[in-house]
Formats: sequence, C-alpha cells, structure tokens
Amino acid sequence: MNELNPIFYPASIAIVGASKDPAKRGFRSIQKLLEDGFEGEIYPVNPKETEILGKASYPTLAAIPGPVDLALVCTPAKTLPEVIAQCGAKGVKGAVVLAGGFAEAGAEGVELQARMVEAARRHGVRIVGPNTSGIFNTHAHSNIVGFSHLKAGGIGLLSQSGNMALSLVTEAQANGRLGLSTYVGIGNESDIRFHEYLEYMRDDANTKVVIAYVEGMKDGRRFLESLRGVAREKPVVIYKSGRTSAGRSSAQSHTGALAGDYAVSEGVLRQAGAILARKSDEILSLAEALSLLEPMSSRRVAVLADGGGHATIAADALTEHGLALATLADRTKQQLAAILPASAAVANPVDVAGGTDADPAVFADCARLLLADPGVDALLVTGLFGGYGVRFSATLTGIEMETSRRIAALHGESGKPVLVHSLYGSLYADLRPQPLALIRELGIPVYDSLERAVRCLQGLAEFGEARRRPQSLSDARPIRTHRFDEVLEACRREGRDVVLEHEARQALESAGIDLRAPVIVADTEDAAVRAYDALGRVPVAMKIVSRDIIHKTDAGGVKLGLGDAAGVRAAYAEILENGRRYAREHIGRAPDVAGVLVTPMAPKGGVEVIIGVVRDPSYGPVLMFGLGGVLVEVLKDVVFRSLPLTEADARSMLAEIRASRILDGVRGASPVDKDALVEVMLGVSALCDAYPEIAELDLNPVLAYPQGVRILDARILLEGSPSSDAAATGAAHA
Amino acid sequence: MNELNPIFYPASIAIVGASKDPAKRGFRSIQKLLEDGFEGEIYPVNPKETEILGKASYPTLAAIPGPVDLALVCTPAKTLPEVIAQCGAKGVKGAVVLAGGFAEAGAEGVELQARMVEAARRHGVRIVGPNTSGIFNTHAHSNIVGFSHLKAGGIGLLSQSGNMALSLVTEAQANGRLGLSTYVGIGNESDIRFHEYLEYMRDDANTKVVIAYVEGMKDGRRFLESLRGVAREKPVVIYKSGRTSAGRSSAQSHTGALAGDYAVSEGVLRQAGAILARKSDEILSLAEALSLLEPMSSRRVAVLADGGGHATIAADALTEHGLALATLADRTKQQLAAILPASAAVANPVDVAGGTDADPAVFADCARLLLADPGVDALLVTGLFGGYGVRFSATLTGIEMETSRRIAALHGESGKPVLVHSLYGSLYADLRPQPLALIRELGIPVYDSLERAVRCLQGLAEFGEARRRPQSLSDARPIRTHRFDEVLEACRREGRDVVLEHEARQALESAGIDLRAPVIVADTEDAAVRAYDALGRVPVAMKIVSRDIIHKTDAGGVKLGLGDAAGVRAAYAEILENGRRYAREHIGRAPDVAGVLVTPMAPKGGVEVIIGVVRDPSYGPVLMFGLGGVLVEVLKDVVFRSLPLTEADARSMLAEIRASRILDGVRGASPVDKDALVEVMLGVSALCDAYPEIAELDLNPVLAYPQGVRILDARILLEGSPSSDAAATGAAHA
Repeated sequence: MNELNPIFYPASIAIVGASKDPAKRGFRSIQKLLEDGFEGEIYPVNPKETEILGKASYPTLAAIPGPVDLALVCTPAKTLPEVIAQCGAKGVKGAVVLAGGFAEAGAEGVELQARMVEAARRHGVRIVGPNTSGIFNTHAHSNIVGFSHLKAGGIGLLSQSGNMALSLVTEAQANGRLGLSTYVGIGNESDIRFHEYLEYMRDDANTKVVIAYVEGMKDGRRFLESLRGVAREKPVVIYKSGRTSAGRSSAQSHTGALAGDYAVSEGVLRQAGAILARKSDEILSLAEALSLLEPMSSRRVAVLADGGGHATIAADALTEHGLALATLADRTKQQLAAILPASAAVANPVDVAGGTDADPAVFADCARLLLADPGVDALLVTGLFGGYGVRFSATLTGIEMETSRRIAALHGESGKPVLVHSLYGSLYADLRPQPLALIRELGIPVYDSLERAVRCLQGLAEFGEARRRPQSLSDARPIRTHRFDEVLEACRREGRDVVLEHEARQALESAGIDLRAPVIVADTEDAAVRAYDALGRVPVAMKIVSRDIIHKTDAGGVKLGLGDAAGVRAAYAEILENGRRYAREHIGRAPDVAGVLVTPMAPKGGVEVIIGVVRDPSYGPVLMFGLGGVLVEVLKDVVFRSLPLTEADARSMLAEIRASRILDGVRGASPVDKDALVEVMLGVSALCDAYPEIAELDLNPVLAYPQGVRILDARILLEGSPSSDAAATGAAHA
Repeated sequence: MNELNPIFYPASIAIVGASKDPAKRGFRSIQKLLEDGFEGEIYPVNPKETEILGKASYPTLAAIPGPVDLALVCTPAKTLPEVIAQCGAKGVKGAVVLAGGFAEAGAEGVELQARMVEAARRHGVRIVGPNTSGIFNTHAHSNIVGFSHLKAGGIGLLSQSGNMALSLVTEAQANGRLGLSTYVGIGNESDIRFHEYLEYMRDDANTKVVIAYVEGMKDGRRFLESLRGVAREKPVVIYKSGRTSAGRSSAQSHTGALAGDYAVSEGVLRQAGAILARKSDEILSLAEALSLLEPMSSRRVAVLADGGGHATIAADALTEHGLALATLADRTKQQLAAILPASAAVANPVDVAGGTDADPAVFADCARLLLADPGVDALLVTGLFGGYGVRFSATLTGIEMETSRRIAALHGESGKPVLVHSLYGSLYADLRPQPLALIRELGIPVYDSLERAVRCLQGLAEFGEARRRPQSLSDARPIRTHRFDEVLEACRREGRDVVLEHEARQALESAGIDLRAPVIVADTEDAAVRAYDALGRVPVAMKIVSRDIIHKTDAGGVKLGLGDAAGVRAAYAEILENGRRYAREHIGRAPDVAGVLVTPMAPKGGVEVIIGVVRDPSYGPVLMFGLGGVLVEVLKDVVFRSLPLTEADARSMLAEIRASRILDGVRGASPVDKDALVEVMLGVSALCDAYPEIAELDLNPVLAYPQGVRILDARILLEGSPSSDAAATGAAHA
C-alpha cells in the first residue's frame, strides 16, 4: 500500500484551527466534509470552542479520544513547528498545511519551513504543502479543499495553482460527464515531493489518468524517474506553464520555483512518457480521451464525414497534428462504394455525400468497414451525426440512437479509438441531441470542435508511442574511464575547471567514441612540424591549447588548412603571439599555454550539428541536439533529453528537429551517418552520466558526413566553473 | 444601392418547383418563410398544384400576378436554362439555384452551366449558385436555406460549405448572444462571384463583420481588390481550408475549385486586410470580438488576474500570439499598489493575490488604472471574475453586477478593447453567473478559454494593423520600359519564351533597380578577355547565355573567381564545350548559345535571399520573399504578397519570415541593407505588374550586404512557357 494512503483515504480528520466563523477555512472545511458525506471521524480542534457544526471540539490534538490519520492545519505559519510536533505526538500520519509565509516568502520563511520539516521528520509526519490550496479524494468523500459540485471519477489532478485546479474542476462540471478522483495542491513541496504524489496516483485504483499543472518542480530529476514508470501504466497529461520568458517571470513571482526552459521541459517530459498539453483549454479533453480510449497503435486515422467542409478541415488538422490519413484497402473502398451514393468519396476522408441523410444508420455500416480495415488505427466521425433528428426529421433520432449503440459496440470489438465530432455537440442541456449523450455514455468522447478532437487523437497516438518506446536504461550505462580520471586529477591539481580540448577528446575516445582523426599537441615550432609530418603531411588545422582561452577563434588561436612545414611553423608562432596578446587584453596577464593542437583538416561538406550537455537546475543533466549554423540559432531548432540517453532517445532526437529532412539528404545530397551521430550522443551521455563533475560539455560544431562524423571542437567545463556568461572575467571568453 | 439588394431584401419570392411533400425543399422553404415571418409575397410555382401551405400556386412564373424579386429554383439541373429564361421574361432580379450537376460534375455540366449563364446574361437575371445550399437574411426574414433557430445579428456569412455554415449557425445558437445578418452559400459562382457578395456585405447596414469560409475562389484577384477596400470598413474573418496537401485533395474532390497553396492565400489575404482564422473553432469567436470591440492601436496588453496560474498562462499565450505585455507606468504601479495587498504583483501581469476576494469591486478600480495608462492598448481580465458569488459568498454577486457595469463603462470611456476570461464562463444556462451574462450584454466578450481570449486579442491587433496599413497603390505604378519591350519583341521573333539572363538584368535595371555590377556578354574567347579587361581585371564570374540551358550550373555552364586573362580564355572554351555536351544529352541537339556573360565576382559574405514572382491561378501574380539556402528550403520560411506591392508590403515581408532576425544581423553581423532589398522587390513588382507576359521571375540567389545587394542570377520565363516542371523536354532544365 502506498505510504500516502492514510492522507488520501483517512479514517479520521482533525481540523486544527477549526472555527465557528463561516468565512473561515476552519469552518467551511468541516461544513464541506459533512455535506460531502465523509464517513470517518471529524475532530475540530480549537481551545475556545466546545462544539462546531454539531461536532465536539477539542482543545488540543492530544485531547482527541481516537486515532487521527490526517490533520488539516488552518493556523498561521509561525505555529507550524509546534503544531507538527503535536501531530507527531498524536500519531497523525499526514498534515495539510494551508498557511503561506514559508519558503516562498523570503529568508525567514525558509528557516521556518526548515524547522517545520525537521519536526515532521522527527515525528514521522508527512506534510502536504505548506502554501497549498488543499486536497480532496472524491472516492473517500474527503474534500478539504472546498471545491463544490465535485463528481467522482477517474481523473487525478496535481496542481501548482489553486485557480487552475478550480478551472479544471469547473470545466469538468460544465462537461457534465467528467469526474475527478483526487486533487493535490502541491504548494511548496516542503516534505512530500511532486513525484511522491505521482506515485501515489499510480497506486490509487480509483485514478485512471493523471493531470499535472506544473510551474517548476523541486526535484525534476526524481520526478522524471517516477514518470518513466507511471506513464507506462497510466496516461499522465502535463501542462507546463512558463513557456515564454514573459510567462516564466510571472511564474517565478508566483511560486518562487524555477520554472526552467520550456524546450528542456518539453524534451525530458515527453521522453519520460508524458502527454504534453500546450493549451490550458485542451488539458481536460486530453484527459477525457485518454481515460476513455485505448492508445493508438500507429498514426493512421480514418475520417467519416457527411460533407466536404468538415472532411477538408479534418484532413488539414490531422496533417498539422502529425497524424496520417489512413490509406484504405481497395476492398474497403469497394464495400463503401456499395453502400454509398455515386457522388460519395470513398477514399479517406470518406464523405458520404448525402448517403446518410435518409438513414443515419449508414454511419454505423461505414464505421464497421473502416474499423475492420487493418490500415486504420482510429476512426473520427465528423459532421452532423447526432443531429439528424434536429436537422432533418425527428423520426431519425431513433435510428441515430441505435446507430450510437452500434458504433459504441464496434469500438469495443475493434479495440481502436473512435471519436465523434458533431456540430451539434456545442449545444447544451435540453438542446443537446440524445444520440450524442448516449454515445458519450457508452464511452465515445463527443467534441464540438474538430480541432480539439484531432488534438485528442494526437494524444492517443503519443500515449501509444510512449508505451511502445523501450524504457529500459540497461543499454545506457555510465562509463568511467581511467583517462578521464587522470584528467580530473590534473584539473584538481592545477586548480582549473576548463578541460583542455585534447583532454576532452581523449575522454570521448575512452568513452568509446570513434574520433576518426588523430590529434597531436605540440609545444614548440619543431614539435608542430614533426606533428605535421607524423600526420602524413595532409593539410592540418592548428589550435591553441590553453586553460585561459576558451573562445579560440576570437583570440586568433586557430589556423586552418596549413599545407606545408613552413606554414605550420609560421602558424605556430602566430597562434602563440595572438594568444598572448589576447590574454593580456582580456585577463591582464600572459596565458597558461599547454601548446598547439595539430589535426588533419576535416573533409569538405558535411552537415553541421551541435551536441551538448548542460545541467538543468531541476532535471539534472540534459543533452541537446540541433543543427549548427546561424539560421538554426535564430530558429532555435533544438531538442533536449535527460540523461542517461537510450539509443531510442538519440534516434528520436534526430527525427524531432524541425529541419530533420536535412539529415536525410536534400537536393540530391546523401543522408548523413545517423549511426555515427547516435554513437557520439550515447558516448557523451555515458560520460556525463558517470561524471557529475562535468558541468557543461559542448561538441560544436560536429560535421556529419555520409560516412562518419568529425568533431571539430570539444569543450568540457567542470562543476564549480563559472558559467559561460560569468566566466569572461576568469578566462578569456569573447 | 447595391445591385444585389433585391436578392437579399426581396419584396416577393417565387418558389419554382414548389411541392406539397414535406421532405422536399420546395415545401420546407415555404414553411420556413412563413415560420420566420417573411412579410413579402410568396409565390409557389408548380403546374400540378393550386395551393401549397395556404398560398396560391401558379403553373408558371409568367402566371404570377405581381412582380417577383427573387426566385428559389428547386428544379433539376437540366431545366435551368429554360427556367432562367422564364425568370428573365418575368423580370425576376435574382435566382437561387440549388441543383447540383453543373460545372462541378464534368464536361456536360460545364456546358449546361454555360447555357444557364448565357440565358441569365441575356435577360439580366443574377444567379446565386448553382450547387448552393441557399441564402438567408435574418433582417428581411428571408430564410430560404432552411436553417432553424436563427437569431438576427450583425455577422454576415459567406461559405463554400453548407455544413460549415450549419456549424457556425449552430455554434452561434449555443453561444446564445450571437446573431447573423446574411448567409450566402457560394456554390459554383456561375454568375455572381465571391467578391460581389463581399461588396454587398460592405453595403449592407445590418452587417457589422463578415465571415468567409473559402475553399477556392474563381477570381481571387478580383476578390483581393474588393477585400482591400471592404476590410478597411468592416472586419473580414476568413477561414481558408485546404492548407495541407491532404486537405487540398479533399477540397478539390468537393468543389472542383483550385484551392491553391495556403502560404500564398495566407500572404495575399492578410495583405489585403483579412483576419485569418487558422482553426474552424475560432472563427465565430473572432467575429464576435471584432463586432463588439475596437481594433487595437498597438500590441500592448495589460493582464488583470486573481491568481498566478492564469497570469502565467496569459503571459505565455500573449507572447506566443505575437502580442506584448504592456509595460506599466510607474504611476500606475504605485496606484495599483495602493489598492492591492502587499503580496500582489503590480507589474504586468497584475495579480491581485486575494485583493478581490472580499470585494470584487477592486477589479473595476484596477481596470480603471490600467485602461488609463497610455502604455496599455487593451485589457484582459482573467480568472474567477463573475464567479465570486459562486465561489465565496452569494452576497458578492451584487458587487460583481455593479463591477460588470463599471468595467463596461470604462470600456466605453477608454475606447480600448476589454475582454474577460472567466473559469465560470464554461458554465451554461442556469449555472452561468449573472455578472458574466450582464457584462456580455454590455458589450464585453466573455471566454471560458484563456487561449481563445488571447487569440481574439490578436485578431483585434491584426485588424488595427490592417486598417493602419497604407493601402494606396499609387506608389506601386507598373513600369513599362522600352528595353523590355525590345526583349519581348526579340523573344517573339525568335519563338522563345526564355528571357536570357543579361536581358533580364537590363529589364530590371530599366525598371529602376540598381544592379551594382556591370555585365558583358562575350561571344568569342577574345571578347571574353576584352570584357575581363574592361571590368578592371577584377576576379570575374562567367556564365553561359543560352535559351536552351536554364539550369546553368548543372550544365557546367558557370565558372567562378577567374583572376587572369588565361583563365578567362580557358573558362570560355570549357563553358561552351560543357554547354554543348549537356544540350546534346538533354535536348539531342547543339544549343543556341548567345555567348558567355562576364561579371565581377560578388563580395564575400552577405545573406542569401530569394525574390520571385509566379502567377497564381486564382490570385494572379504574387511575389515571394525568403532566405535562400537548403535550410530554409526545408523549413519553407517564405512569404507571399499579391502584386502590385507597396513599400509597406515589402517591408512587412522582410519582418514576417520566421528567420527575420538574420536580416537584422546576428552574432555580431551588421544588419543587411533593407532599403536595397525593398528597392529590388518594388522594381520587380512594377515590372511584373506592367508585363502580364511574364509568367515567372526568379532572382535566386540575391546576396544582401550591409550596403547594397547583388543579384547573382536572374531568370524570366514568359507566358506560354512550359512551366518549370514541364519544361525539361523543351529546354535543358536539370
């Protein structure tokens, strides 16, 4: 049984700070518990009252006669360390702390929160919050958040905004068919963390699908670990707010949590199997579809329309959501043609062209044929269905009711998702056609927006893909290497946090990456010429190697295409001279130069890409992949994954950048060697996973050829390094 | 008065093909007219009946005693030429032809349609359709399309899909507050074209905003001309379907009209002032906002929220929709701070942080301050407003009612758009809070989706920009030049439709474009060397000039960076030899070679762009601008405008490509010379506008420098040219 069970299925609840004032939470919570029929014990705690709402009130927790599972604490922040200690003494399992004024409110609050948590740890009390709107569990009738009109259902809700929770609860109420199981206002995560709630929802049999409204998590890395497991069992729909810098600054002033970069969140949350809602108004629809329907086994959708307009809009929307119009089997088309008028379109989208006007049962006949086609993964019905009785003749309503039953049965038999968009779906209450109410009751979601229906299909496809994606991390082992241990030792000894390029290359090579080009560091002009000779007298690139000069090109520390010994000799001298001048200007002293790196020039051509690792403050190390060059920098066409990376992760990154077609070869170019790119990405992941000392790693650019790749520059900064921005004073960044 | 007025405000309607069968349109139309209280004369026409629904039936149109404005023709296609002739004889002003089986149905239908139109022209009858769902005008109670539950209002609807019209009408019904003025099912546009309906709506005092659902228009160019004028007077919301190739193929099978490329439609429709809806479920909301609110004078929005969640989502959505969070004046912030609790955020987005819980009137106080700030163009209220009575205490409802009145008054006084998102906006009927119903009644739109509210704000900003954009085409004069007349004459004489590069350059130069580089065509090796000398012995590029070789590089017909006389001589020979071999392989004969073009090499650097003109089958000549290079080809980052181009159009194109930051200079690069780019675009526009003979023009690549641009290649194909794809057999394309 999940450790948090006593909090969500309490046999008894104490209200600390209970009140007789109907405006106060300490009154309304008791009122709500009574209204909602909570069957356990309710114990008001208030030394000044003897009875509240017909319940005996106790002066202290200790005075309560029976055991207490859960305490709702309505008292001010400063009382909390003591209240939690009292909870502990009483054997309370969990406390929901409403008060604000803790870590979100400055240094004093941070200290207060620490003392409260210390008391909790000492006494074995788990804390929800503080600074939470509360929690509820409709199945336990334990609603201590005070939301009204709650319908019990299968949607679990984790939210860092009380108002967003209220929005979703109200939308569910308007929908009329959707119910929630459990709600948690996450608050400050002082004790119980986001991932623990997620794991609780996995274990809760009443929860079928989880919604998380996330601004920023305290321990994103741990959350990802949990998510990776939970998302294979139950769909997890996440709305991550603070996508734009405008949104982030607003989110930060709200919670004090670091919201992080959306591109990072998007990459790592999807990698772990979450379905990401990008709009707040699609969250609940996604949860509904995922709770009712099976994941899609692939992206091929059949559209059944009764007019060209909706057929066209559906086709546009499917394509724009990355779904495909299923190619129907010839046999399916023949069978459709046999039951539809000559003017009907029997290629997908199927347009019945009036073929259902007189007899909407034909919809079910078509649905049967389409769902039986092995090339179809899901069926979207769009147009007037459900409203034929309204539009044409009331006598058709009976036929539509029967058709609803048949389509629902076909859904069950086929095991493929079926969704209905109806223009009559926008009508509410009395006006809403009965056949639509019936088919929804039978488990088929009904939409008044065609785009929303398609978005939900996309969610079903994403969930299918998340479940099929290999999640085993066994092929993603960290690699510690003797060579890099030595490098780290040297850095420690020399007090530097810049790993020199040749050291970084050695580390990559020792992690199993084929660098495909030898590198020699020369520390005299003669040594440089000897290196040139040793490399076979092919044209070489030469680069300064100095802990003090990171942006080598800007320092004049790079010379390319040197094709004879004299040139190499002259380049060596010039590079050194440039480096010295640059260092004098930027750091005011002579640079510490280890030598000049000599390596054969990379072949012409190749696609420029970037592979890098940074440590996200919440999610930990994340790997970035993108195309290089100024255009992509402007268009920000990059994707992120958390480490460790699996081979499937790496391949999905190559496919996910918007300009991925370039990797496949355009304008007659050959495709690049994706296997070699994946090898580099997995090697980088293994190395960074093994060495938490690596703060940043940057392979930029990497040239990808039809055969093999060449890493043109490799940078590693160690933990404790000033960040790239701040480093300008320490090392000569430009 | 608009010519179509008798069709939309008829004093009398004849139903040709009237029927006593309640399933038939000839019965239901009469029934609907009677139900809806049509006050004019209704004349059923059917030789077999004497009376239908209490109205005397006439055997023929001629037998009708009074004059007839409008005929609804329900008879089959084949009868139409005769029926229209009878309409003409009777003096009928307009006929709505429902039947299908005309131009959309193959060659026979095309011929039938031509005969019908010929009869109409001869007799001065205007035709709506054929293949139309019908028309209605709620203000004239002349509903002959048979939609039910029509509420009269200010939205005019033009649709190429009857089902989409029904969708929008039903959505308006569900909304409860939105009414339509006029509907037209466009049908085949056999006689009355799309733009004539648009102009009618402009002239109709009952129509405040126009919605057009467009699949493909017969005469897009004429529509754009009308749109340019109408969109300055009334907002025109257009949904263009068939955006993707999947959608287009579906649209084509539906209407037989060419839906065209969405990027082209998007560019030219927005250029002319349309507000483009990209989702079918936002069309009506956009129309509502545009009918209620004033256009925004700039993009700066103030957000007034009562919780961090909605504030964050609003900030994200505003940024993602290209809007800006207004920077509040210090004075505004101080005044807000004075009325809000200390925990409130008084920088935009404003989060009252509980400051309205006890007294929602504070919303109006905040709204007053925000609307008075000169840095604010519009106000978005988001969160619980309207539902405080539901959420906290019923006593607050009265305060909220008064607050609604005050906010509505502030809206009127400020002349700035105010929109309300409320999570209680999703509740319908009895549940919907009164303050929201009231504020909507007072002219403030209410949304249950925050993203939808922001989308509508974006529409108001777009409408403001469309109205402010200079629409005078006086600075966009066509330029005919003597030099290009000569070129055309030469082409005609020589039977070629390929304008040679040097001819194209001369045409551009004569149109006022500064080419910044001399070009000499040499027809012998000696002449090439003389050209090299004449150009000052700078390194030159050399290119074959031949009507038979368009893709010069592929033919080996281009040599670059030739820096001495010997090199020039050798290059000349090689280019000719390569050209001859290529032509032999591709067209099986020796090429017609005019010589070799010699021109100084363009300077290094510069941003590669493409400027081109094609003739769209519907919209006529359109100019494309985009960045060059393989990446942009993959990402399709191009924009289109119809000709003639104004300077404002040209500048908007530079700003509108996604990667426009590259033109402004990134990574320390200088910005490119936008004036020079605009000069080229306007010159190209002037030339192509003057010469309908130009089928395609391609300047690719153009290099844009900090000072000036260089056109590296210029191609012009003349009308009657095989298109690029088909030309491979005629000229040696690769």
